[in-house]
Parts: sequence; structure tokens; C-alpha cells
Amino acid sequence: MNDHAMAVIGVLNASDRASAGIYSDENGPAIEQYLREVLTSPWRAILRVVPDGIESVRDGLIDLADRENCGLIFTTGGTGPAPRDLTPEATMAACSKLLPGFGELMRAVSLKQVATAILSRQTAGIRGRTLIVNLPGRPASIRVCLDAIFPAIPYCLDLIGQPGMATDPVRCKAFRPKT
Amino acid sequence: MNDHAMAVIGVLNASDRASAGIYSDENGPAIEQYLREVLTSPWRAILRVVPDGIESVRDGLIDLADRENCGLIFTTGGTGPAPRDLTPEATMAACSKLLPGFGELMRAVSLKQVATAILSRQTAGIRGRTLIVNLPGRPASIRVCLDAIFPAIPYCLDLIGQPGMATDPVRCKAFRPKT
Amino acid sequence: MNDHAMAVIGVLNASDRASAGIYSDENGPAIEQYLREVLTSPWRAILRVVPDGIESVRDGLIDLADRENCGLIFTTGGTGPAPRDLTPEATMAACSKLLPGFGELMRAVSLKQVATAILSRQTAGIRGRTLIVNLPGRPASIRVCLDAIFPAIPYCLDLIGQPGMATDPVRCKAFRPKT
Repeated sequence: MNDHAMAVIGVLNASDRASAGIYSDENGPAIEQYLREVLTSPWRAILRVVPDGIESVRDGLIDLADRENCGLIFTTGGTGPAPRDLTPEATMAACSKLLPGFGELMRAVSLKQVATAILSRQTAGIRGRTLIVNLPGRPASIRVCLDAIFPAIPYCLDLIGQPGMATDPVRCKAFRPKT
Repeated sequence: MNDHAMAVIGVLNASDRASAGIYSDENGPAIEQYLREVLTSPWRAILRVVPDGIESVRDGLIDLADRENCGLIFTTGGTGPAPRDLTPEATMAACSKLLPGFGELMRAVSLKQVATAILSRQTAGIRGRTLIVNLPGRPASIRVCLDAIFPAIPYCLDLIGQPGMATDPVRCKAFRPKT
Repeated sequence: MNDHAMAVIGVLNASDRASAGIYSDENGPAIEQYLREVLTSPWRAILRVVPDGIESVRDGLIDLADRENCGLIFTTGGTGPAPRDLTPEATMAACSKLLPGFGELMRAVSLKQVATAILSRQTAGIRGRTLIVNLPGRPASIRVCLDAIFPAIPYCLDLIGQPGMATDPVRCKAFRPKT
């Protein structure tokens, strides 16, 4: 595979406290660790931490998509009902189309673990040739959500013109319809 | 608990016929009865009936949230596909953020009872420090929906700055994540 | 039943390639065949093929609803994440209210078959007295979705002022609540 087949994956942690250095970013590394377990094609991750807020998260997404050429971006944090939780609004502001099935499925699987899963406002969308997916703000919940949605991600990336991504079939049964 | 811990809960019935006195409001009292069974911390309810319509329901919600200081408002009625069913649009107009997980779960549990549950357009959202949730327009369906969503409500109210709400653990397993 | 009870059902295939004659419309006839199996009250279908795109699909929907007086319109195609997939946006542009329960249920049933079902952005909505529902772009998936949602359609049409539609109870258990 040549350099163009290298997937560039952005991980954006929206957190006032992590961005102020009050505590360290544990969610970004948790997502990166997941990618390490699941992906078998070449990739590299760009981790960022920004304060909560529509502008800060939206601008972080736009920078990762348009300047860093990420084909896939995961956000973590900022999807609840609290006043500073504005990651879904920022995602909608950065995307031209939304994929409501991601949020529905992540809430459905999280709901099997905890009744407050319905408070999560996670969504996903497309900005140009970039898929953006909101993940929860705790490592354990991140893993539950990624297990549910990752099988659909490689085909989604194919459809928006990104290089083919391969997954370990034991860890993630990525599905591509035969055409 | 002091007076400030008293939860003020608004119940807004959107119904042309009930507001015209053609028949009496049965849905508001059904919701109040449910609260009586489930809540063990102090609360009082404010019941209102308004005609269907975006403006009438939106203004009713704003009055209950901003002037009456309700931390939680339930609507009933006006969530179907008929021309006068405009409660979700009114809710979106009154809220700064939406919580799609409430509507998804209420439709999912209602669908186990009746195929037409997918016609309900129920949603939920936050206005300032007030959680607004659309319930269906029939007492039996109201109860099914409240049983499904109530376990997530006390923690949601915590997150938006409302006083702690306690529930009878036999009737409602309210969940609060350990922090 | 008199002529006014005849249901007029629009079927709009959004497809650049089918509209350019590169291949023939298989999805429209598949939907028509399904209606033949399920409906026992009088109906006729109007099949159209348009290129993908917000304007082309929106204008096709408006023509079928407002000029051809369709009470029910199914779209097929254009609901994925690819750049030319814009049928949901076109549907939202043509509708005054949305029915998110249709998309949620179609994704949930499709997800039992294929992990990439979450990539479908299918929705449904009301334009005036017309119900518009987005179906997938493959005959097998169309059937799975129609089996899931059709039981709710006759009652929805009642609520928006369309003539009563009857279904074969063996093929489709249409539900109407007793009033």
C-alpha cells in the first residue's frame, strides 16, 4: 500500500477540564488503543483536546477534516444535556449531511448497560469526504459504542471516497455489500 | 429538605377539544397520578391545557419554564401526523438543545404494543434549566412511556442544575452514575 | 367504493444511472409488486425516475403530491452517505413535518440483516395531505422495510385525510386504534 492508502484519523476530545490541564486526556488514548486493536491497514491518529463549546469543537473538526485531511474523526465528550455539552451542535455545524443511525445504535447498545444512555445526544455526519462520529466521554462507554458501529465504518469510508480500510475479522466484522 | 428542593413539574395538555371544554383533561391528571406513585422527594405540579398549535404550545412551555420555574415539563397530545399535531415543533421552538434518545426509546417501547407507534413524533429537549418531554395523548400510552424514560430523569435534572429528585426504587430504578 | 376512494401512490426512484437509461428501474416495479400483494382497496401507482439531487427529488415529490394528488409517496435510492445521496434532504425540503419513527424502525430491522444499515439516512414526513417515506435502493432491502412499516400506513393516511386503505390481513396486519 502506498502513502495515499494511509488512513488519517482525528480524535477530538471536547473537555473544558482536560483542555485546561486539570486532568489528562484519557479518552483520546482509549480510542487510539481501540484502533490499534481493530485496524490492520495503515493508519495514523491525530489527537487533539479542545474546550467544550460549539465554536471550539466545530473549528477543531474543520481543522482536522480540511487541513489535516482526516477521513474519519471521532469526538469524545460533550454529548450530554449539561449547558456546556455542545458537541452534537458543533458536529451538525461542521457537517453537510447527518447519519442518525449511528446515534440511534450507540444509544440502543448503551441503554442495555445504563438507563441514562437516552441522555446522550451523540450523532454522526459527513463533512466533504470526512466521516465524523460522536463518542461518549468515558472509556468504558466508548468501547461499547465502537464495538457496535465500527463494522459499518470501512464501507462508509469507501462511499465517501476514502482509501480502503481493513479490520481484524476476529475483533470487528466489517461489512461491505457485494456490488 | 428546604423549600428550594421542591421540584416544580409542569404538565401541559395540548388539545383543541380539552381546551374548549368539549371534554375534560384526563391526561394531565394521569401524569400527576404517576408522579404521586413514583416520586419520594417533595414536588408540586402545575397543570395547564392549551389548544394545539406551535405558538400556543411553545408559549405554554415558555411560561411554565421561565415564569413558573418548572425544572421538568411533560406535554401530552399533539405528537401525531394530523395537521393540528404540532407539539414537537413547539418543543423544538422552545428548546436550545434536543435529546433524541427520549423519543427513540418511547417509540421503541410503544412499538411492542402497537404498530402505529412509529407515527408518534415525540421528542425531548432542554430550555435553560428545564427538561421538556413530549408524552403521548392517551393515559395507557403515557404510562408505558413514563416507565421507560423516568429512570433517566433525576440524573438529567442533576446535570442541568435542578434540585435532586428521589424515586421509589420499587416503582422506578432511577440511575445516577458514580462520579 | 367510488372513484374518490382510489388511492394514488407515487413511487419516485432517485438514481442518476436509471434516469440516464444506463440501467432500468427495478426498484419502482418492486415497490409496485409489493403494493399488489398487500393492498385490497383500489389503488393506482405513478412511477417516476429522477436524477439524484435535492432539487430533482424535491421537485419530483412536490409534483407527485400537489399535481398528481398522491396521498402516499415512496422514494427509493439516494439515502446513503455518498455525495450524490440527497433524498432525505429533498424529503425534508418538501415536508412540513417529519416522522422520525419510520427511519428508526427501518434502520432497526435492516440492522438485523446487515451492519451497514446504520449508514441509511431514510426518513419520512408529511407534505399537506401526503405521506412521503424513503425506502432503500435495493429490492431485497425495500421488502424488509415495507414489511416493518406498512402496518402503520393506513392509519397514518386516515389521520391526514386520505381515503381508507385496506390490506390483506395475512400479508400485513394494518392497525387502527379504536376511537
